[in-house]
Amino acid sequence: MPEVLVIMGSKSDLPVAEKAADIFKKFSISYDFKVASAHRTPKKVEDLVKDSDAKIFIAIAGLSAALPGVIASFTTKPVIGVPVSGKVNMDAILSIVQMPPGIPVASVGLDRGDNAAVLAAEILSIDDKALQDKLAAYRAEMAAKIDRDSEEVSNAVQA
Amino acid sequence: MPEVLVIMGSKSDLPVAEKAADIFKKFSISYDFKVASAHRTPKKVEDLVKDSDAKIFIAIAGLSAALPGVIASFTTKPVIGVPVSGKVNMDAILSIVQMPPGIPVASVGLDRGDNAAVLAAEILSIDDKALQDKLAAYRAEMAAKIDRDSEEVSNAVQA
Amino acid sequence: MPEVLVIMGSKSDLPVAEKAADIFKKFSISYDFKVASAHRTPKKVEDLVKDSDAKIFIAIAGLSAALPGVIASFTTKPVIGVPVSGKVNMDAILSIVQMPPGIPVASVGLDRGDNAAVLAAEILSIDDKALQDKLAAYRAEMAAKIDRDSEEVSNAVQA
Amino acid sequence: MPEVLVIMGSKSDLPVAEKAADIFKKFSISYDFKVASAHRTPKKVEDLVKDSDAKIFIAIAGLSAALPGVIASFTTKPVIGVPVSGKVNMDAILSIVQMPPGIPVASVGLDRGDNAAVLAAEILSIDDKALQDKLAAYRAEMAAKIDRDSEEVSNAVQA
Amino acid sequence: MPEVLVIMGSKSDLPVAEKAADIFKKFSISYDFKVASAHRTPKKVEDLVKDSDAKIFIAIAGLSAALPGVIASFTTKPVIGVPVSGKVNMDAILSIVQMPPGIPVASVGLDRGDNAAVLAAEILSIDDKALQDKLAAYRAEMAAKIDRDSEEVSNAVQA
Amino acid sequence: MPEVLVIMGSKSDLPVAEKAADIFKKFSISYDFKVASAHRTPKKVEDLVKDSDAKIFIAIAGLSAALPGVIASFTTKPVIGVPVSGKVNMDAILSIVQMPPGIPVASVGLDRGDNAAVLAAEILSIDDKALQDKLAAYRAEMAAKIDRDSEEVSNAVQA
Amino acid sequence: MPEVLVIMGSKSDLPVAEKAADIFKKFSISYDFKVASAHRTPKKVEDLVKDSDAKIFIAIAGLSAALPGVIASFTTKPVIGVPVSGKVNMDAILSIVQMPPGIPVASVGLDRGDNAAVLAAEILSIDDKALQDKLAAYRAEMAAKIDRDSEEVSNAVQA
Amino acid sequence: MPEVLVIMGSKSDLPVAEKAADIFKKFSISYDFKVASAHRTPKKVEDLVKDSDAKIFIAIAGLSAALPGVIASFTTKPVIGVPVSGKVNMDAILSIVQMPPGIPVASVGLDRGDNAAVLAAEILSIDDKALQDKLAAYRAEMAAKIDRDSEEVSNAVQA
Repeated sequence: MPEVLVIMGSKSDLPVAEKAADIFKKFSISYDFKVASAHRTPKKVEDLVKDSDAKIFIAIAGLSAALPGVIASFTTKPVIGVPVSGKVNMDAILSIVQMPPGIPVASVGLDRGDNAAVLAAEILSIDDKALQDKLAAYRAEMAAKIDRDSEEVSNAVQA
Repeated sequence: MPEVLVIMGSKSDLPVAEKAADIFKKFSISYDFKVASAHRTPKKVEDLVKDSDAKIFIAIAGLSAALPGVIASFTTKPVIGVPVSGKVNMDAILSIVQMPPGIPVASVGLDRGDNAAVLAAEILSIDDKALQDKLAAYRAEMAAKIDRDSEEVSNAVQA
Repeated sequence: MPEVLVIMGSKSDLPVAEKAADIFKKFSISYDFKVASAHRTPKKVEDLVKDSDAKIFIAIAGLSAALPGVIASFTTKPVIGVPVSGKVNMDAILSIVQMPPGIPVASVGLDRGDNAAVLAAEILSIDDKALQDKLAAYRAEMAAKIDRDSEEVSNAVQA
Repeated sequence: MPEVLVIMGSKSDLPVAEKAADIFKKFSISYDFKVASAHRTPKKVEDLVKDSDAKIFIAIAGLSAALPGVIASFTTKPVIGVPVSGKVNMDAILSIVQMPPGIPVASVGLDRGDNAAVLAAEILSIDDKALQDKLAAYRAEMAAKIDRDSEEVSNAVQA
Repeated sequence: MPEVLVIMGSKSDLPVAEKAADIFKKFSISYDFKVASAHRTPKKVEDLVKDSDAKIFIAIAGLSAALPGVIASFTTKPVIGVPVSGKVNMDAILSIVQMPPGIPVASVGLDRGDNAAVLAAEILSIDDKALQDKLAAYRAEMAAKIDRDSEEVSNAVQA
Repeated sequence: MPEVLVIMGSKSDLPVAEKAADIFKKFSISYDFKVASAHRTPKKVEDLVKDSDAKIFIAIAGLSAALPGVIASFTTKPVIGVPVSGKVNMDAILSIVQMPPGIPVASVGLDRGDNAAVLAAEILSIDDKALQDKLAAYRAEMAAKIDRDSEEVSNAVQA
Repeated sequence: MPEVLVIMGSKSDLPVAEKAADIFKKFSISYDFKVASAHRTPKKVEDLVKDSDAKIFIAIAGLSAALPGVIASFTTKPVIGVPVSGKVNMDAILSIVQMPPGIPVASVGLDRGDNAAVLAAEILSIDDKALQDKLAAYRAEMAAKIDRDSEEVSNAVQA
Repeated sequence: MPEVLVIMGSKSDLPVAEKAADIFKKFSISYDFKVASAHRTPKKVEDLVKDSDAKIFIAIAGLSAALPGVIASFTTKPVIGVPVSGKVNMDAILSIVQMPPGIPVASVGLDRGDNAAVLAAEILSIDDKALQDKLAAYRAEMAAKIDRDSEEVSNAVQA
């Protein structure tokens, strides 16, 4: 029983999903990957959502990205949407962000599978002190990386 | 048993649907109106589509306009999508136009319930000579109106 | 006498047209390809449309994509428009979608020659049970592909 | 100690915040409203976030809507961002959606204070069966409203 | 025999055309107004263009503004296109600007019937010294208006 | 001899300029207003810029907002550009922001005459401790207003 | 004394200018190329325009493409603007199209140096029967190319 | 103590920063480079800004580019923002341009680190005649380059 179920609209979205997997592994959050299309396999989307014990859904889709909203139509659990880049980009962003009243999707940025997973971790950490500590450590790690980068570029200027 | 089933995502889309009704009445095409939301009543959408004997579906929706695509996911009958205007406009247009491979939606222009109905009539007329004649008469009527308008503006210039 | 006449605005649009051909072959729908430009060969567009016995027209064009609308001006048969990608993309999409009242074009997505053909098949299937079955089989095939993809990505996670 | 702290970038965003309040009251979720600006009162934003025991933050802002991201920079709790409409609209939407890797914001739609609150409720409901039931009831209520609307528009057609 | 033929796609474009008329009267350039639609009356457009002795065409249209390009397809005389504002605006602008190689349209700005007429005057003035003088006088008049405005706003500051 | 010369492209831009005047008065910065158009009075723009002893120029313009860039072409003093809203908005924003290498314009937001003036004050304050203090006081004033607003909205929630 | 003076804002715009040269050679229209920048060499732009005996100016520029408008500010001869593609594209298009009242620029499409030259030829042909014939021949040539392409793609389908 | 502190949101923005360095070297303006993220290291941004004796800040950032505005929230010194290109581009441009009233950022064009540095030089030159002369020489150099380019392309035409 994974805590987070990641559903991508097409196998071609896998690179975006793998950014999420890297985060889940870092935080020891259980997850599973599925491919299901709001348009090509609507029943499969419904079944995956209704049969799942996951606490959070992440939906990854491009073009007219109906998948996150359709998942949200079948559950009151939090649904995080990740728009996938293509020739237009605003298509997937707006399809995921501009949900009607009553059925929210939590949109993250274009191709940001990583942020979808971090957001899922933040949600799961609300009552989980250990996960809060891991998130804080991840932030510290990012900050340390930036400090090193900053020193490097500054030193290059002084040189 | 209406030939065309018009499904709007919200009752607030009714003015756009009524433009379609005017066309259907002119062409004596039977139709029905329903409200059903891809996000708020997914099961109702599925049932309406699967239980319908209509030959064509028209879906009218704004914002993240998933309704036409979700209808298309439940049928291989032609689905015509009408994006509804709002604060962004490109949200509904792109959500309806940018469907993934295999599941087409026939998009018409922003708020163009009238054109959705004319397109439905054109489809129904393929093997219906009487309807072809009505469509031709409608075109002639539009052209005559333009001729009168043209004469009017030209006369005003000469005067 | 092809059932569907595919007119592209330029020979450079051929790759988009070939996506339509693949679908037509799969569904045994007869079709023909022509090149004609609304701007460079308006008379040829008019003649092709008026002389054709096709039941449906597909028009493929980029930039200021007037071709679908111009074809629609010469016929009351259904016209499906396919915007072709380029440096701007919104030019072709909006030129095809935003038709004025009375003269609809059925727009599909950017470069979606395949969906134009599927939509044509859906229209032709209204009174053709065999074609309905082929469309259903095509959907099943897509769904099966997604099921296999889903199993593959899920297994990779479990591994 | 409110469960959700709603921070708006300007008092002019209050109408969007009030849509959230309506939802919180319906679900008996405790909340508080604050005004704080990422640009005009950065220290106040930091203090509000660090001193708060809220489980979730909602940030409402227009224009270059830095507020949700700045709140997210001070906490690993979930931050929900609501873009506020204005003369450009894409400014606030993109400022909130396009967060860099590592620091997610959960964006909802333009002016969708209501959806921000529903999303907060969904997050809080993960381990709260009573709240899950309220969310389900809210969905049922929306669906019933749509059913009534559907019947009304359909009856008007038959009449 | 008017020097410039102004064709608008719909009588609703008249206010934009009237801005052109004001300029033509100021410069004593003969003109005529016609209404003809690329989509609703293609034959009328062709006939107007082919039967006209005008030296220049101005085409005014909104939405998928095919009219300027279609006029250009029937003549090698200069065609000036005026996009008309609506709910999207970029539709008419891009439809008129993004013409394919070989068939230019001279696009002016949104709703700029005045500039279309000035551009026509500039073209007609190439070998017409009297018209050049009128254009120079028009420029001087605009500059004098700006000088007066400048003095007024500057005086208000000093006061 | 004003410290800042505000040039607007048209007298209709006066409301945006007046937002700048309010700031200048608050900071006791001398300024003057002129109307001059890059397109209608290019010589006047050149003369105003070359004859001015102002330390900073503010240019306010809409549509194809060439004025800030044209001013910048005549001086190496800092030029601040203010895009003015209209039917398109992105026209003025992009015209002002997207300057070529070597000739910068400092763009502020749409209709933000106030921010242009604050930016001018910030530039003038670099070696002026008294002006720095005024800017700090202005910030404190804004922060205090936000604190009062925050208390007000929070109290309304508690009530 | 060239009939058309082509001014590009940067030498990097040369490929777009060369498309114009190909057309001028075909039509035996005399032309010259200059590089001059509205922002970096404003005086040179003014001198080039005022000293030129050309009948028409073509201005080629990208980014905040002020060049066509600035040229237009110095002459009442027709100015044709060509937006050059880059990372944004809408910057150059809108900068050239959205000119203020009184100072028109004739915009052609993105990178369409060819169409700028054809438009110039059309303008020069107004009183030049020989040039009209060349333009007609050019159209016939394009049409013949399309006919050959059409036959080729159609034959490939039949095969 | 550098006169200008350049802060980039990520080390990947270094190529844009290096365009600024080239300008600073040419003008003998002292500068330093730092990496700090508004979202990942907010405290570092605050400390860098508050501890710096620099007269001007340049902030370079992409996506939801909050960095320039956040720097501006901690200082009343001039802040110049440089949007960095990516998949969307309008995200960084609008995030930097559309600042709220009272807290200006001086935005330059996409990836225009060079222009940010020239703008900084212009600001520093207000009371520095030697720097004014360097800026004038830089302009002369650019103009001479354009003159050479112009001669070259013109000669190629004559040849």
